[in-house]
Amino acid sequence: MRFICVLAHPEPASFTASLARHGMKALEQSGHSVDLVDLYAIGFDPISDRRNFVAAANPDRFDQQDEERHAAATGGFSTELQLEMDRLAACDVLVLQFPIWWLGMPAIMKGWIDRVFAIGRTYGGGRWFDRGLMRGKLAMLAVTIGGTEQAYSECGIYGPALDMLRPINHGILGFCGFDVVEPFLAYAPARKGDQERDEIFAEYAGRLRHIERAPRLPMLHSDDYEHFVLKTSRHEATRAA
Amino acid sequence: MRFICVLAHPEPASFTASLARHGMKALEQSGHSVDLVDLYAIGFDPISDRRNFVAAANPDRFDQQDEERHAAATGGFSTELQLEMDRLAACDVLVLQFPIWWLGMPAIMKGWIDRVFAIGRTYGGGRWFDRGLMRGKLAMLAVTIGGTEQAYSECGIYGPALDMLRPINHGILGFCGFDVVEPFLAYAPARKGDQERDEIFAEYAGRLRHIERAPRLPMLHSDDYEHFVLKTSRHEATRAA
Repeated sequence: MRFICVLAHPEPASFTASLARHGMKALEQSGHSVDLVDLYAIGFDPISDRRNFVAAANPDRFDQQDEERHAAATGGFSTELQLEMDRLAACDVLVLQFPIWWLGMPAIMKGWIDRVFAIGRTYGGGRWFDRGLMRGKLAMLAVTIGGTEQAYSECGIYGPALDMLRPINHGILGFCGFDVVEPFLAYAPARKGDQERDEIFAEYAGRLRHIERAPRLPMLHSDDYEHFVLKTSRHEATRAA
Repeated sequence: MRFICVLAHPEPASFTASLARHGMKALEQSGHSVDLVDLYAIGFDPISDRRNFVAAANPDRFDQQDEERHAAATGGFSTELQLEMDRLAACDVLVLQFPIWWLGMPAIMKGWIDRVFAIGRTYGGGRWFDRGLMRGKLAMLAVTIGGTEQAYSECGIYGPALDMLRPINHGILGFCGFDVVEPFLAYAPARKGDQERDEIFAEYAGRLRHIERAPRLPMLHSDDYEHFVLKTSRHEATRAA
Protein backbone atom coordinates (compact mmCIF):
# COMPACT_ATOMS: atom_id res chain seq x y z
CA MET A 1 0.00 0.00 0.00
CA ARG A 2 1.03 3.58 -0.58
CA PHE A 3 1.02 5.73 2.54
CA ILE A 4 1.27 9.49 2.80
CA CYS A 5 2.27 10.73 6.24
CA VAL A 6 1.80 14.44 6.85
CA LEU A 7 3.83 15.55 9.86
CA ALA A 8 3.56 18.84 11.73
CA HIS A 9 6.16 19.38 14.44
CA PRO A 10 8.81 22.11 14.64
CA GLU A 11 11.39 19.91 16.43
CA PRO A 12 12.93 16.96 14.53
CA ALA A 13 14.03 15.38 17.83
CA SER A 14 10.51 15.52 19.31
CA PHE A 15 8.56 12.45 20.35
CA THR A 16 6.05 13.17 17.55
CA ALA A 17 8.75 13.25 14.86
CA SER A 18 10.41 10.11 16.30
CA LEU A 19 7.07 8.35 16.24
CA ALA A 20 6.65 9.29 12.59
CA ARG A 21 10.12 7.94 11.73
CA HIS A 22 9.49 4.66 13.55
CA GLY A 23 6.20 4.26 11.73
CA MET A 24 7.76 4.95 8.33
CA LYS A 25 10.57 2.50 8.95
CA ALA A 26 8.14 -0.25 9.96
CA LEU A 27 6.02 0.32 6.87
CA GLU A 28 9.01 0.27 4.53
CA GLN A 29 10.30 -2.93 6.13
CA SER A 30 6.89 -4.47 5.43
CA GLY A 31 7.13 -3.55 1.76
CA HIS A 32 4.79 -0.55 1.80
CA SER A 33 5.79 2.77 0.29
CA VAL A 34 5.66 5.93 2.40
CA ASP A 35 5.69 9.52 1.29
CA LEU A 36 6.59 11.74 4.26
CA VAL A 37 5.39 15.34 4.03
CA ASP A 38 7.27 17.08 6.83
CA LEU A 39 5.46 20.43 6.80
CA TYR A 40 7.98 22.32 8.96
CA ALA A 41 10.93 20.87 7.04
CA ILE A 42 9.54 21.89 3.64
CA GLY A 43 8.41 25.28 4.99
CA PHE A 44 4.82 24.68 3.93
CA ASP A 45 2.85 27.91 3.71
CA PRO A 46 -0.46 27.50 5.58
CA ILE A 47 -2.15 30.69 4.38
CA SER A 48 -4.99 30.12 1.95
CA ASP A 49 -5.82 32.87 -0.55
CA ARG A 50 -5.00 33.80 -4.16
CA ARG A 51 -1.55 32.27 -3.76
CA ASN A 52 -3.28 28.86 -4.19
CA PHE A 53 -3.85 29.58 -7.87
CA VAL A 54 -1.85 30.45 -10.96
CA ALA A 55 -4.65 32.64 -12.34
CA ALA A 56 -7.85 34.29 -11.18
CA ALA A 57 -11.33 33.26 -12.32
CA ASN A 58 -12.62 36.51 -10.81
CA PRO A 59 -9.88 39.11 -10.22
CA ASP A 60 -12.31 41.57 -8.55
CA ARG A 61 -13.58 39.48 -5.68
CA PHE A 62 -11.96 36.40 -4.19
CA ASP A 63 -14.28 33.45 -3.52
CA GLN A 64 -12.15 30.46 -2.65
CA GLN A 65 -14.58 27.75 -3.73
CA ASP A 66 -15.24 29.50 -7.06
CA GLU A 67 -11.52 29.80 -7.68
CA GLU A 68 -11.02 26.16 -6.69
CA ARG A 69 -13.71 25.04 -9.14
CA HIS A 70 -12.02 27.03 -11.88
CA ALA A 71 -8.56 25.71 -10.98
CA ALA A 72 -9.82 22.11 -10.80
CA ALA A 73 -11.23 22.44 -14.31
CA THR A 74 -8.19 24.17 -15.81
CA GLY A 75 -5.26 22.68 -13.84
CA GLY A 76 -4.77 26.07 -12.26
CA PHE A 77 -3.51 25.20 -8.77
CA SER A 78 -0.10 26.49 -7.72
CA THR A 79 2.79 24.06 -8.23
CA GLU A 80 3.15 23.64 -4.47
CA LEU A 81 -0.49 22.60 -4.06
CA GLN A 82 -0.63 20.45 -7.19
CA LEU A 83 2.26 18.38 -5.79
CA GLU A 84 0.36 17.77 -2.56
CA MET A 85 -2.85 16.98 -4.45
CA ASP A 86 -1.03 14.45 -6.62
CA ARG A 87 0.45 12.78 -3.54
CA LEU A 88 -2.99 12.59 -1.97
CA ALA A 89 -4.63 11.22 -5.11
CA ALA A 90 -1.99 8.49 -5.39
CA CYS A 91 -2.12 7.26 -1.80
CA ASP A 92 -4.06 4.38 -0.28
CA VAL A 93 -3.66 5.60 3.28
CA LEU A 94 -3.40 9.14 4.66
CA VAL A 95 -1.86 9.61 8.10
CA LEU A 96 -2.00 13.02 9.76
CA GLN A 97 0.60 13.16 12.51
CA PHE A 98 0.64 16.11 14.87
CA PRO A 99 0.68 17.23 18.49
CA ILE A 100 -2.58 18.61 19.87
CA TRP A 101 -2.19 22.36 20.18
CA TRP A 102 -5.17 24.08 21.79
CA LEU A 103 -7.43 21.07 21.23
CA GLY A 104 -6.74 20.97 17.51
CA MET A 105 -4.20 20.85 14.72
CA PRO A 106 -1.17 23.15 14.63
CA ALA A 107 -1.87 25.96 12.15
CA ILE A 108 0.58 24.56 9.60
CA MET A 109 -1.42 21.30 9.48
CA LYS A 110 -4.76 23.08 9.30
CA GLY A 111 -3.36 25.13 6.42
CA TRP A 112 -2.43 21.96 4.56
CA ILE A 113 -6.09 20.91 4.83
CA ASP A 114 -7.45 24.40 4.01
CA ARG A 115 -5.39 24.58 0.82
CA VAL A 116 -5.01 20.99 -0.44
CA PHE A 117 -8.57 19.83 0.27
CA ALA A 118 -10.03 21.85 -2.58
CA ILE A 119 -13.45 21.42 -4.13
CA GLY A 120 -13.11 19.31 -7.27
CA ARG A 121 -10.15 17.48 -5.70
CA THR A 122 -11.20 15.95 -2.36
CA TYR A 123 -14.91 16.78 -2.37
CA GLY A 124 -17.66 18.24 -4.52
CA GLY A 125 -20.34 17.28 -6.99
CA GLY A 126 -22.74 16.39 -4.18
CA ARG A 127 -20.61 13.38 -3.25
CA TRP A 128 -19.69 13.01 0.40
CA PHE A 129 -19.14 10.41 3.13
CA ASP A 130 -19.84 6.94 1.67
CA ARG A 131 -20.06 8.47 -1.82
CA GLY A 132 -17.13 10.86 -1.29
CA LEU A 133 -14.34 11.44 -3.77
CA MET A 134 -11.77 9.84 -1.43
CA ARG A 135 -13.74 6.59 -1.20
CA GLY A 136 -11.49 3.53 -1.13
CA LYS A 137 -8.75 5.28 0.83
CA LEU A 138 -8.05 4.94 4.55
CA ALA A 139 -7.17 7.78 6.91
CA MET A 140 -5.87 7.91 10.46
CA LEU A 141 -4.88 10.59 12.93
CA ALA A 142 -1.68 9.89 14.89
CA VAL A 143 -1.84 12.39 17.69
CA THR A 144 0.47 13.31 20.54
CA ILE A 145 -1.24 14.87 23.54
CA GLY A 146 0.71 16.71 26.23
CA GLY A 147 -1.82 15.99 28.99
CA THR A 148 -2.95 12.77 30.57
CA GLU A 149 -5.57 10.38 29.23
CA GLN A 150 -7.78 11.23 32.24
CA ALA A 151 -7.84 14.93 31.34
CA TYR A 152 -9.32 13.90 27.96
CA SER A 153 -12.01 11.61 29.39
CA GLU A 154 -15.69 12.20 30.28
CA CYS A 155 -14.57 13.49 33.69
CA GLY A 156 -11.55 15.42 32.46
CA ILE A 157 -11.48 19.18 31.94
CA TYR A 158 -11.29 18.87 28.16
CA GLY A 159 -13.83 16.06 27.66
CA PRO A 160 -13.33 12.92 25.53
CA ALA A 161 -10.49 12.95 23.01
CA LEU A 162 -12.74 11.43 20.33
CA ASP A 163 -15.18 14.34 20.69
CA MET A 164 -12.29 16.79 20.36
CA LEU A 165 -11.13 15.06 17.17
CA ARG A 166 -14.59 14.66 15.64
CA PRO A 167 -14.40 17.81 13.48
CA ILE A 168 -11.32 16.30 11.81
CA ASN A 169 -12.33 12.62 11.69
CA HIS A 170 -15.94 13.18 10.74
CA GLY A 171 -16.12 16.68 9.25
CA ILE A 172 -12.96 16.56 7.13
CA LEU A 173 -11.82 12.98 6.51
CA GLY A 174 -15.16 11.16 6.67
CA PHE A 175 -16.88 13.91 4.71
CA CYS A 176 -14.42 13.45 1.83
CA GLY A 177 -15.05 9.70 1.79
CA PHE A 178 -12.04 8.32 3.64
CA ASP A 179 -12.65 5.27 5.77
CA VAL A 180 -11.40 6.65 9.06
CA VAL A 181 -9.78 4.27 11.53
CA GLU A 182 -9.57 4.96 15.26
CA PRO A 183 -6.91 7.55 16.01
CA PHE A 184 -3.58 6.50 17.47
CA LEU A 185 -3.25 8.54 20.66
CA ALA A 186 -0.03 8.98 22.64
CA TYR A 187 -0.55 10.82 25.93
CA ALA A 188 1.98 12.73 28.01
CA PRO A 189 5.16 11.54 26.23
CA ALA A 190 7.28 13.97 28.25
CA ARG A 191 6.44 12.01 31.39
CA LYS A 192 7.47 8.65 29.92
CA GLY A 193 10.83 6.90 30.09
CA ASP A 194 12.72 5.33 27.19
CA GLN A 195 11.18 1.92 27.70
CA GLU A 196 7.60 3.23 27.67
CA ARG A 197 8.39 5.29 24.59
CA ASP A 198 9.80 2.23 22.82
CA GLU A 199 6.60 0.37 23.63
CA ILE A 200 4.55 3.17 22.04
CA PHE A 201 6.79 3.13 18.96
CA ALA A 202 6.29 -0.66 18.64
CA GLU A 203 2.54 -0.33 19.15
CA TYR A 204 2.39 2.36 16.47
CA ALA A 205 4.42 0.25 14.04
CA GLY A 206 1.97 -2.62 14.57
CA ARG A 207 -1.02 -0.36 14.07
CA LEU A 208 0.34 0.95 10.76
CA ARG A 209 1.38 -2.47 9.45
CA HIS A 210 -2.10 -3.85 10.08
CA ILE A 211 -4.08 -0.68 9.46
CA GLU A 212 -6.66 -2.52 7.38
CA ARG A 213 -7.62 -4.47 10.49
CA ALA A 214 -7.83 -1.42 12.78
CA PRO A 215 -11.30 -0.55 14.11
CA ARG A 216 -13.07 2.04 11.97
CA LEU A 217 -15.14 4.98 13.07
CA PRO A 218 -18.83 4.97 12.04
CA MET A 219 -19.47 6.19 8.49
CA LEU A 220 -22.50 8.32 7.72
CA HIS A 221 -24.67 7.13 4.81
CA SER A 222 -25.44 9.83 2.25
CA ASP A 223 -28.71 8.20 1.26
CA ASP A 224 -30.10 8.81 4.76
CA TYR A 225 -29.75 12.56 4.21
CA GLU A 226 -31.36 15.18 2.07
CA HIS A 227 -30.00 18.73 1.91
CA PHE A 228 -27.49 17.67 4.60
CA VAL A 229 -30.28 16.78 7.07
CA LEU A 230 -31.41 13.31 8.20
CA LYS A 231 -34.48 12.33 6.16
CA THR A 232 -36.35 10.81 9.11
CA SER A 233 -36.16 14.01 11.11
CA ARG A 234 -37.44 16.04 8.18
CA HIS A 235 -40.26 13.57 7.82
CA GLU A 236 -41.09 13.83 11.52
CA ALA A 237 -40.97 17.61 11.42
CA THR A 238 -43.43 17.58 8.52
CA ARG A 239 -45.76 15.22 10.34
CA ALA A 240 -45.66 17.30 13.51
CA ALA A 241 -46.52 20.48 11.60
CA MET B 1 -14.89 49.06 26.96
CA ARG B 2 -11.86 48.16 24.90
CA PHE B 3 -12.52 45.57 22.20
CA ILE B 4 -10.01 43.63 20.15
CA CYS B 5 -11.49 42.08 17.01
CA VAL B 6 -9.30 39.51 15.29
CA LEU B 7 -10.49 38.97 11.72
CA ALA B 8 -9.47 36.16 9.37
CA HIS B 9 -10.78 36.46 5.82
CA PRO B 10 -8.81 36.81 2.59
CA GLU B 11 -11.45 38.97 0.83
CA PRO B 12 -12.09 42.51 2.14
CA ALA B 13 -15.44 42.61 0.31
CA SER B 14 -16.63 39.36 1.93
CA PHE B 15 -19.68 39.11 4.15
CA THR B 16 -17.39 38.23 7.10
CA ALA B 17 -15.26 41.36 6.63
CA SER B 18 -18.37 43.54 6.14
CA LEU B 19 -19.83 42.12 9.33
CA ALA B 20 -16.62 43.03 11.17
CA ARG B 21 -16.72 46.60 9.84
CA HIS B 22 -20.38 47.03 10.80
CA GLY B 23 -19.63 45.76 14.28
CA MET B 24 -16.65 48.08 14.72
CA LYS B 25 -18.62 51.09 13.56
CA ALA B 26 -21.46 50.35 15.98
CA LEU B 27 -19.04 49.99 18.88
CA GLU B 28 -17.22 53.22 18.07
CA GLN B 29 -20.53 55.07 17.78
CA SER B 30 -21.37 53.79 21.26
CA GLY B 31 -18.12 55.17 22.66
CA HIS B 32 -16.18 51.92 22.88
CA SER B 33 -12.70 51.55 21.46
CA VAL B 34 -11.94 48.80 18.94
CA ASP B 35 -8.61 47.43 17.86
CA LEU B 36 -9.05 45.52 14.59
CA VAL B 37 -6.43 42.88 13.88
CA ASP B 38 -7.02 41.98 10.24
CA LEU B 39 -4.76 38.95 9.97
CA TYR B 40 -4.73 38.73 6.17
CA ALA B 41 -4.20 42.49 5.80
CA ILE B 42 -1.19 42.54 8.14
CA GLY B 43 0.18 39.31 6.64
CA PHE B 44 0.23 37.60 10.01
CA ASP B 45 2.55 34.59 10.00
CA PRO B 46 0.70 31.58 11.50
CA ILE B 47 3.69 29.25 11.85
CA SER B 48 4.78 28.66 15.42
CA ASP B 49 8.43 27.78 16.10
CA ARG B 50 11.68 29.53 17.05
CA ARG B 51 10.56 32.61 15.12
CA ASN B 52 8.31 33.38 18.13
CA PHE B 53 11.36 34.30 20.21
CA VAL B 54 14.29 36.70 20.08
CA ALA B 55 16.58 34.20 21.78
CA ALA B 56 16.73 30.50 22.63
CA ALA B 57 16.56 29.09 26.16
CA ASN B 58 17.71 25.78 24.74
CA PRO B 59 19.35 26.08 21.30
CA ASP B 60 19.75 22.29 20.95
CA ARG B 61 16.19 21.16 21.24
CA PHE B 62 13.06 23.24 20.72
CA ASP B 63 10.34 22.84 23.34
CA GLN B 64 7.75 25.53 22.77
CA GLN B 65 6.40 25.72 26.32
CA ASP B 66 9.92 25.89 27.78
CA GLU B 67 10.84 28.66 25.36
CA GLU B 68 7.60 30.49 26.17
CA ARG B 69 8.31 30.31 29.90
CA HIS B 70 11.77 31.72 29.29
CA ALA B 71 10.44 34.45 26.99
CA ALA B 72 7.66 35.37 29.43
CA ALA B 73 10.28 35.83 32.19
CA THR B 74 12.76 37.76 30.05
CA GLY B 75 10.54 39.71 27.63
CA GLY B 76 11.86 37.53 24.86
CA PHE B 77 8.91 37.27 22.48
CA SER B 78 9.32 38.53 18.92
CA THR B 79 8.17 42.11 18.30
CA GLU B 80 5.26 40.85 16.21
CA LEU B 81 3.97 38.61 19.00
CA GLN B 82 4.62 41.10 21.80
CA LEU B 83 2.40 43.58 19.98
CA GLU B 84 -0.46 41.07 19.84
CA MET B 85 0.08 40.09 23.49
CA ASP B 86 -0.05 43.74 24.55
CA ARG B 87 -3.29 44.24 22.64
CA LEU B 88 -4.79 41.17 24.26
CA ALA B 89 -3.67 42.18 27.76
CA ALA B 90 -5.21 45.63 27.32
CA CYS B 91 -8.62 44.52 26.05
CA ASP B 92 -11.86 43.98 27.93
CA VAL B 93 -13.47 41.96 25.15
CA LEU B 94 -11.89 39.63 22.58
CA VAL B 95 -13.87 38.89 19.41
CA LEU B 96 -12.62 36.21 17.03
CA GLN B 97 -14.26 36.70 13.66
CA PHE B 98 -13.82 34.08 10.97
CA PRO B 99 -15.55 31.82 8.45
CA ILE B 100 -15.77 28.13 9.35
CA TRP B 101 -13.30 26.28 7.17
CA TRP B 102 -13.42 22.52 7.58
CA LEU B 103 -15.32 22.76 10.87
CA GLY B 104 -12.74 25.03 12.43
CA MET B 105 -10.69 28.20 12.22
CA PRO B 106 -8.78 29.17 9.10
CA ALA B 107 -5.09 28.33 9.63
CA ILE B 108 -4.13 32.00 9.95
CA MET B 109 -6.50 32.37 12.94
CA LYS B 110 -5.35 29.12 14.54
CA GLY B 111 -1.77 30.37 14.17
CA TRP B 112 -2.66 33.59 16.01
CA ILE B 113 -3.85 31.41 18.90
CA ASP B 114 -0.90 28.98 18.68
CA ARG B 115 1.61 31.83 18.88
CA VAL B 116 -0.02 34.59 20.97
CA PHE B 117 -1.62 32.33 23.61
CA ALA B 118 1.72 31.54 25.25
CA ILE B 119 2.24 30.07 28.68
CA GLY B 120 2.96 32.88 31.11
CA ARG B 121 0.80 35.22 29.05
CA THR B 122 -2.71 33.74 28.68
CA TYR B 123 -2.39 30.66 30.90
CA GLY B 124 -0.03 28.92 33.29
CA GLY B 125 0.81 28.66 36.96
CA GLY B 126 -1.97 26.15 37.53
CA ARG B 127 -4.58 28.82 36.90
CA TRP B 128 -7.34 27.98 34.46
CA PHE B 129 -11.06 28.48 33.83
CA ASP B 130 -12.55 30.50 36.72
CA ARG B 131 -9.03 31.15 38.04
CA GLY B 132 -7.49 31.71 34.62
CA LEU B 133 -5.14 34.55 33.72
CA MET B 134 -7.74 36.14 31.40
CA ARG B 135 -10.34 36.36 34.18
CA GLY B 136 -12.40 39.53 33.97
CA LYS B 137 -12.34 39.64 30.18
CA LEU B 138 -15.14 38.61 27.84
CA ALA B 139 -14.70 36.62 24.63
CA MET B 140 -17.01 35.85 21.74
CA LEU B 141 -16.78 33.99 18.45
CA ALA B 142 -18.41 35.70 15.47
CA VAL B 143 -18.61 32.99 12.91
CA THR B 144 -19.78 32.81 9.32
CA ILE B 145 -20.91 29.38 8.15
CA GLY B 146 -21.33 28.54 4.48
CA GLY B 147 -23.94 25.84 5.10
CA THR B 148 -27.43 26.01 6.50
CA GLU B 149 -28.39 26.03 10.19
CA GLN B 150 -30.06 22.63 9.70
CA ALA B 151 -26.80 21.04 8.52
CA TYR B 152 -25.28 22.11 11.87
CA SER B 153 -28.11 20.73 14.05
CA GLU B 154 -28.54 17.40 15.84
CA CYS B 155 -29.96 15.94 12.62
CA GLY B 156 -27.49 17.62 10.28
CA ILE B 157 -24.47 15.91 8.77
CA TYR B 158 -22.02 17.98 10.83
CA GLY B 159 -23.84 17.90 14.19
CA PRO B 160 -24.56 20.90 16.44
CA ALA B 161 -22.55 24.07 15.82
CA LEU B 162 -21.92 24.51 19.55
CA ASP B 163 -20.27 21.07 19.71
CA MET B 164 -18.11 21.98 16.74
CA LEU B 165 -17.02 25.22 18.45
CA ARG B 166 -16.48 23.67 21.89
CA PRO B 167 -12.72 23.14 21.46
CA ILE B 168 -12.40 26.90 20.92
CA ASN B 169 -15.00 28.18 23.39
CA HIS B 170 -14.20 25.76 26.17
CA GLY B 171 -10.68 24.47 25.49
CA ILE B 172 -9.05 27.76 24.47
CA LEU B 173 -11.09 30.76 25.68
CA GLY B 174 -12.73 29.27 28.77
CA PHE B 175 -9.51 27.50 29.75
CA CYS B 176 -7.65 30.82 29.81
CA GLY B 177 -10.32 32.38 32.02
CA PHE B 178 -12.38 34.39 29.55
CA ASP B 179 -16.08 34.60 30.24
CA VAL B 180 -17.32 33.22 26.93
CA VAL B 181 -20.61 34.49 25.57
CA GLU B 182 -22.73 32.54 23.10
CA PRO B 183 -21.24 32.72 19.62
CA PHE B 184 -22.77 34.97 16.98
CA LEU B 185 -23.53 32.64 14.07
CA ALA B 186 -24.36 33.77 10.54
CA TYR B 187 -25.41 30.91 8.26
CA ALA B 188 -25.32 30.73 4.47
CA PRO B 189 -24.69 34.44 3.76
CA ALA B 190 -24.23 33.73 0.05
CA ARG B 191 -27.89 32.72 -0.16
CA LYS B 192 -29.16 35.90 1.47
CA GLY B 193 -30.25 39.14 -0.14
CA ASP B 194 -29.22 42.65 0.84
CA GLN B 195 -32.10 43.12 3.23
CA GLU B 196 -31.42 39.89 5.12
CA ARG B 197 -27.74 40.81 5.31
CA ASP B 198 -28.58 44.25 6.69
CA GLU B 199 -30.70 42.58 9.35
CA ILE B 200 -27.76 40.38 10.35
CA PHE B 201 -25.47 43.44 10.47
CA ALA B 202 -27.96 45.21 12.75
CA GLU B 203 -28.35 42.15 14.96
CA TYR B 204 -24.58 41.87 15.25
CA ALA B 205 -24.22 45.55 16.13
CA GLY B 206 -26.80 45.08 18.89
CA ARG B 207 -25.06 41.99 20.20
CA LEU B 208 -21.72 43.80 20.43
CA ARG B 209 -23.15 46.96 22.02
CA HIS B 210 -24.83 44.92 24.75
CA ILE B 211 -22.28 42.13 25.00
CA GLU B 212 -22.31 42.21 28.79
CA ARG B 213 -25.95 41.15 28.69
CA ALA B 214 -25.40 38.32 26.19
CA PRO B 215 -25.96 34.77 27.48
CA ARG B 216 -22.75 33.15 28.68
CA LEU B 217 -21.58 29.59 28.17
CA PRO B 218 -21.13 27.46 31.30
CA MET B 219 -17.83 28.01 33.12
CA LEU B 220 -16.00 25.08 34.64
CA HIS B 221 -14.96 25.51 38.30
CA SER B 222 -11.32 24.70 38.95
CA ASP B 223 -12.01 23.71 42.56
CA ASP B 224 -14.14 20.79 41.35
CA TYR B 225 -11.07 19.30 39.65
CA GLU B 226 -7.80 17.76 40.74
CA HIS B 227 -5.08 16.95 38.22
CA PHE B 228 -7.55 18.03 35.51
CA VAL B 229 -10.11 15.38 36.52
CA LEU B 230 -13.44 15.87 38.31
CA LYS B 231 -12.93 15.16 42.01
CA THR B 232 -16.22 13.27 42.42
CA SER B 233 -15.31 10.78 39.71
CA ARG B 234 -11.92 10.15 41.28
CA HIS B 235 -13.60 9.66 44.61
CA GLU B 236 -16.11 7.23 43.10
CA ALA B 237 -13.35 5.33 41.32
CA THR B 238 -11.52 4.97 44.64
CA ARG B 239 -14.66 3.78 46.40
CA ALA B 240 -15.39 1.25 43.64
CA ALA B 241 -11.86 -0.21 43.83
